[in-house]
Amino acid sequence: MIIVMSPGSNAEQLQRVQNKVEKAGLRCHLSTGEDRTIVGVIGDKKAIANLEMNMMEGVEKTVRITEKYKLVSRDFEPQDTVIDVGGVKIGGDNLTVMAGPCAVESKEQLREAAKVVREGGAKFLRGGAFKPRTSPYDFQGLACDGLKMLREAADGEGLKVITEIVDSDDLEVIGEYADIYQVGARNMQNFQLLKALGKAKKPVLLKRGLSATISEWLNAAEYILAGGNKDVILCERGIRTYETFTRNTLDLSAVAAVKELSHLPIVVDPSHGTGRWQMVRPMARAAVAAGADGLIIEVHPHPEVALSDGDQSLTPKNYLSLMTDLRDIAALMGKKL
Amino acid sequence: MIIVMSPGSNAEQLQRVQNKVEKAGLRCHLSTGEDRTIVGVIGDKKAIANLEMNMMEGVEKTVRITEKYKLVSRDFEPQDTVIDVGGVKIGGDNLTVMAGPCAVESKEQLREAAKVVREGGAKFLRGGAFKPRTSPYDFQGLACDGLKMLREAADGEGLKVITEIVDSDDLEVIGEYADIYQVGARNMQNFQLLKALGKAKKPVLLKRGLSATISEWLNAAEYILAGGNKDVILCERGIRTYETFTRNTLDLSAVAAVKELSHLPIVVDPSHGTGRWQMVRPMARAAVAAGADGLIIEVHPHPEVALSDGDQSLTPKNYLSLMTDLRDIAALMGKKL
Amino acid sequence: MIIVMSPGSNAEQLQRVQNKVEKAGLRCHLSTGEDRTIVGVIGDKKAIANLEMNMMEGVEKTVRITEKYKLVSRDFEPQDTVIDVGGVKIGGDNLTVMAGPCAVESKEQLREAAKVVREGGAKFLRGGAFKPRTSPYDFQGLACDGLKMLREAADGEGLKVITEIVDSDDLEVIGEYADIYQVGARNMQNFQLLKALGKAKKPVLLKRGLSATISEWLNAAEYILAGGNKDVILCERGIRTYETFTRNTLDLSAVAAVKELSHLPIVVDPSHGTGRWQMVRPMARAAVAAGADGLIIEVHPHPEVALSDGDQSLTPKNYLSLMTDLRDIAALMGKKL
Amino acid sequence: MIIVMSPGSNAEQLQRVQNKVEKAGLRCHLSTGEDRTIVGVIGDKKAIANLEMNMMEGVEKTVRITEKYKLVSRDFEPQDTVIDVGGVKIGGDNLTVMAGPCAVESKEQLREAAKVVREGGAKFLRGGAFKPRTSPYDFQGLACDGLKMLREAADGEGLKVITEIVDSDDLEVIGEYADIYQVGARNMQNFQLLKALGKAKKPVLLKRGLSATISEWLNAAEYILAGGNKDVILCERGIRTYETFTRNTLDLSAVAAVKELSHLPIVVDPSHGTGRWQMVRPMARAAVAAGADGLIIEVHPHPEVALSDGDQSLTPKNYLSLMTDLRDIAALMGKKL
Repeated sequence: MIIVMSPGSNAEQLQRVQNKVEKAGLRCHLSTGEDRTIVGVIGDKKAIANLEMNMMEGVEKTVRITEKYKLVSRDFEPQDTVIDVGGVKIGGDNLTVMAGPCAVESKEQLREAAKVVREGGAKFLRGGAFKPRTSPYDFQGLACDGLKMLREAADGEGLKVITEIVDSDDLEVIGEYADIYQVGARNMQNFQLLKALGKAKKPVLLKRGLSATISEWLNAAEYILAGGNKDVILCERGIRTYETFTRNTLDLSAVAAVKELSHLPIVVDPSHGTGRWQMVRPMARAAVAAGADGLIIEVHPHPEVALSDGDQSLTPKNYLSLMTDLRDIAALMGKKL
Repeated sequence: MIIVMSPGSNAEQLQRVQNKVEKAGLRCHLSTGEDRTIVGVIGDKKAIANLEMNMMEGVEKTVRITEKYKLVSRDFEPQDTVIDVGGVKIGGDNLTVMAGPCAVESKEQLREAAKVVREGGAKFLRGGAFKPRTSPYDFQGLACDGLKMLREAADGEGLKVITEIVDSDDLEVIGEYADIYQVGARNMQNFQLLKALGKAKKPVLLKRGLSATISEWLNAAEYILAGGNKDVILCERGIRTYETFTRNTLDLSAVAAVKELSHLPIVVDPSHGTGRWQMVRPMARAAVAAGADGLIIEVHPHPEVALSDGDQSLTPKNYLSLMTDLRDIAALMGKKL
Repeated sequence: MIIVMSPGSNAEQLQRVQNKVEKAGLRCHLSTGEDRTIVGVIGDKKAIANLEMNMMEGVEKTVRITEKYKLVSRDFEPQDTVIDVGGVKIGGDNLTVMAGPCAVESKEQLREAAKVVREGGAKFLRGGAFKPRTSPYDFQGLACDGLKMLREAADGEGLKVITEIVDSDDLEVIGEYADIYQVGARNMQNFQLLKALGKAKKPVLLKRGLSATISEWLNAAEYILAGGNKDVILCERGIRTYETFTRNTLDLSAVAAVKELSHLPIVVDPSHGTGRWQMVRPMARAAVAAGADGLIIEVHPHPEVALSDGDQSLTPKNYLSLMTDLRDIAALMGKKL
Repeated sequence: MIIVMSPGSNAEQLQRVQNKVEKAGLRCHLSTGEDRTIVGVIGDKKAIANLEMNMMEGVEKTVRITEKYKLVSRDFEPQDTVIDVGGVKIGGDNLTVMAGPCAVESKEQLREAAKVVREGGAKFLRGGAFKPRTSPYDFQGLACDGLKMLREAADGEGLKVITEIVDSDDLEVIGEYADIYQVGARNMQNFQLLKALGKAKKPVLLKRGLSATISEWLNAAEYILAGGNKDVILCERGIRTYETFTRNTLDLSAVAAVKELSHLPIVVDPSHGTGRWQMVRPMARAAVAAGADGLIIEVHPHPEVALSDGDQSLTPKNYLSLMTDLRDIAALMGKKL
């Protein structure tokens, strides 16, 4: 941490700042510039993380130099993490696609969806059984019935299952039916849920919050790793900006950022990321070219009758055509679909 | 809902759109402009809320005319809601101040804080026992011990207690010690928690999410009212923008917006809203002048040793001086502190 | 400037960084922490401002400690600047209101507007003759004819004139008719215009850009002061955020920020800042309570027939009533209207 | 336009709304729902564009159905525009790369840069002679001397020249040396400059504003086309968001949006879009995969001594390697580099 003293601060104020730093078991390193004195704080990272100095008189501002996360950092683990989900790999030289409807609606819907999902080459069936919805009057999901349908449809086609968890009380029941727990954007900082998932025995896909910085996102992943669960997949799904043409602004630079800062795999959700099915294809291609390890895509056998998010779901035909595109770009990136 | 057909759409596509609307039990009203045909959808609000039309061929876009929330709306209840918390009123012609440290740290800290809080004229003692923190390595709160300390300190000065709930499993224990449940910004769309609070017997203060629209915020409140709990207080605490000088951008226009759209009381948190103690005073004054029903302010007997958010906490001296200012502005606004 | 070396950097890279700093006539101050070495750069502010180090191998990031602006800074000039416009003061213990229609439309409109503006106690008549409009097909203003009408109407009521300049070629003609040049949000970083205004002989009101940080805004003002014109008034007019209920998000914390960082006066525009006439009153009150030195408000004798921005214009009746409110709050703030 | 009457509005208010619409030469189409009456406004697009109704009593809100731009719209011109710059094509099945240093610094720098730019396969040399800089104390560019150096260096390698224009007074002199005028993000809504470029005889590359919506950007392009200059290239360069890890958030979905809404070519600037040279490569690849017609990239022979934006400039080696990647992805997209 760097403490910048204000130009008008005096010797006594500086002394009190130094005292507080030293009392926290840390050391000070003074540097006197033309306008300002700067105090560098040296010592244990955790102690520095808990130091609050802005309130002290004579302090103009403080600047944190290092991030608080550790286990998710590439400094800590330089090798890319590859997660093995019953033989299906995520990360490394794999491009893993997860596809299916936004919400689980019926056996028939899922059977049709699973068939086309497998045909296109995706390895995971996705679908929401517990749905977090903006309004209490929106369709809230089929809950446990939905989970069973998902598993059954996936098994019929040899697919794995990924589904959203919204409450730590559902940990066990979802773990029974799904292969990966998905944490939605609205729950990225639901720390109780993250702590529970840190104890879970299955991988977690952690979506970036609607307006989460990359640093906050990695800190959220740190909660899970710190709890003992090393299998975390990050998922960029668009951030909230002033633009209204798209539902969110898909931030593909987050893929490059995560690759630089962390060893965890990252996938992209171009369906929620844009909110428009017309944009899923170009953004999916772009995500792979940016270096993503996978995609999570909404495909609905009949999007025009979907109970939620039909606007952003691909038809089977569009999905199959997209998968052909992706295979070629993946090859250029040294990844296999 | 208004459905805008694209300029190149044909009669068959229009017919299919009308069929889908009618199948949902709704009626169509066509309007043919120079460039485009527009379909007005008429009928039951809930059925319209669930209608998804953007995927249909020939549809350019859809525009929703009415909000999904009902119970929180001023259309539904034109009179201002006044909440009575054991004799202390929130809403109407009252200006209610809640003050105290960010986190509960010790009995001594709370005793000192409660004394000054009461002296200044605030009616509630605030303080976090369960703390949602960005990093797993940050101080996470004293939990139940903290709750007891809060209650004891408040009782010693005749104050009410407000504290944050982060998990629906804590509903009962917090309800035992606190008078108002506080839902933090990160949990504004934790729908499980909102549903649980809909069944609770005590009022809820619902903070606006970091990047929640006013519409999403009111829909979140609707979850609580729809569950049966009518006593919701909204709290503006700053939104996330590109500006970095302040921790958040305090959106005081949200006070005016809520007053227009809803009958629920609204308070403002200038401490989190700015993240800088120097700004708490001007923003607190401004909030009252904008029409807020109350304030929630961080006051710490010794902010320079606070375990969290010392940067935004007022000293007792600054707090007392602020309360004098507020009394005068409240009087101009026809409110009593 | 602080240069943070990456954990994996070596001695040779550090040496090259030091060499580059010294070659720029600056000095290095090394500080070796547990994870990272940090290089403090000491010396002439201007030389540091031009130093670019992020490209150097081994550098993780750089942090700038000081702002680039000087003349606008409160460090440079601790006393509040008070600007005298032919006897009307802006800044200090004055609350100065500028009011009038968004666009100049006709003599009759201005005559009516000027009359009510003066009655309410505002000292300036505002109105746009040169209008920057999003679409080339929108009304673009009456240009020089508009300027003359403005002056005439203002003179008839003993008011001063403020109007927008959009092109440095208009400096002279606008200077002939107006008392203050207004720079709109879209031109805040039109550096050619700012340089021209630095040579002008009349005060400049500089609106904050749609997504300008406070630092960029003060740097824009620095262009004008550096050119020799000391009479700059800052104007907060709302920033662009994700919220759509309001046209912009009025950032009243900018008032407190500017008061802390700069000696220049600051006024607030609640009309553009909210885009809704219903919100002008509460936000105007809040601005004064936050410490603003003035307001610029849209008033139109007949807003329902306005050629632009009728949605955010007050009727004469609402304006007069607002001015009564403001007088009371100004008194509490130690300012006279 | 759709006018939504509030639930409490009366017959007289509705009548006044209808009268105002009809007085503007437009027709009304009423639609009476369960809660609200909706008035559809039918008639001439331009007349509707100028209609302001929100101020009328009884009006809850208005919704605009159609965009104000025309000439830039794909509705108006369904075929992709291909611009021919002295034999070099932009748009259609071409991938056009523009590369060079941020600022023109010296003859030697440009000679080296031009050589490597041509070797990589780019067709344009870029470089700023007139630099818009945040602080008046930053390097402001070499002006006319810079223009000559650019032309000379480009001619030596058979390249075209693109450079920024910041003032309409420079139209002629820049036109003498450059092949394309570049309008920077800060000038996207400098309407005087846009009007001047509408009369220019050379193509214009129009960067998206820092916080411009896609609609505002297309309206800005409309100014140029409406003036008579049909040769406009759009350039996505990142938008301002809350994220601080990157300088801006590169919005690649804007590429897909522009392809849907307009016939104009679009290029991407991954250098300013990310502000970090490490991210230029993945984002450039992603841009091509998203369907961009070209790229504008910063390459500096010696980025570590660059006078501006060295942080985001590629070394010659990194640039050459990137161009190899791009050739392969372009081929998949049916474009030739």
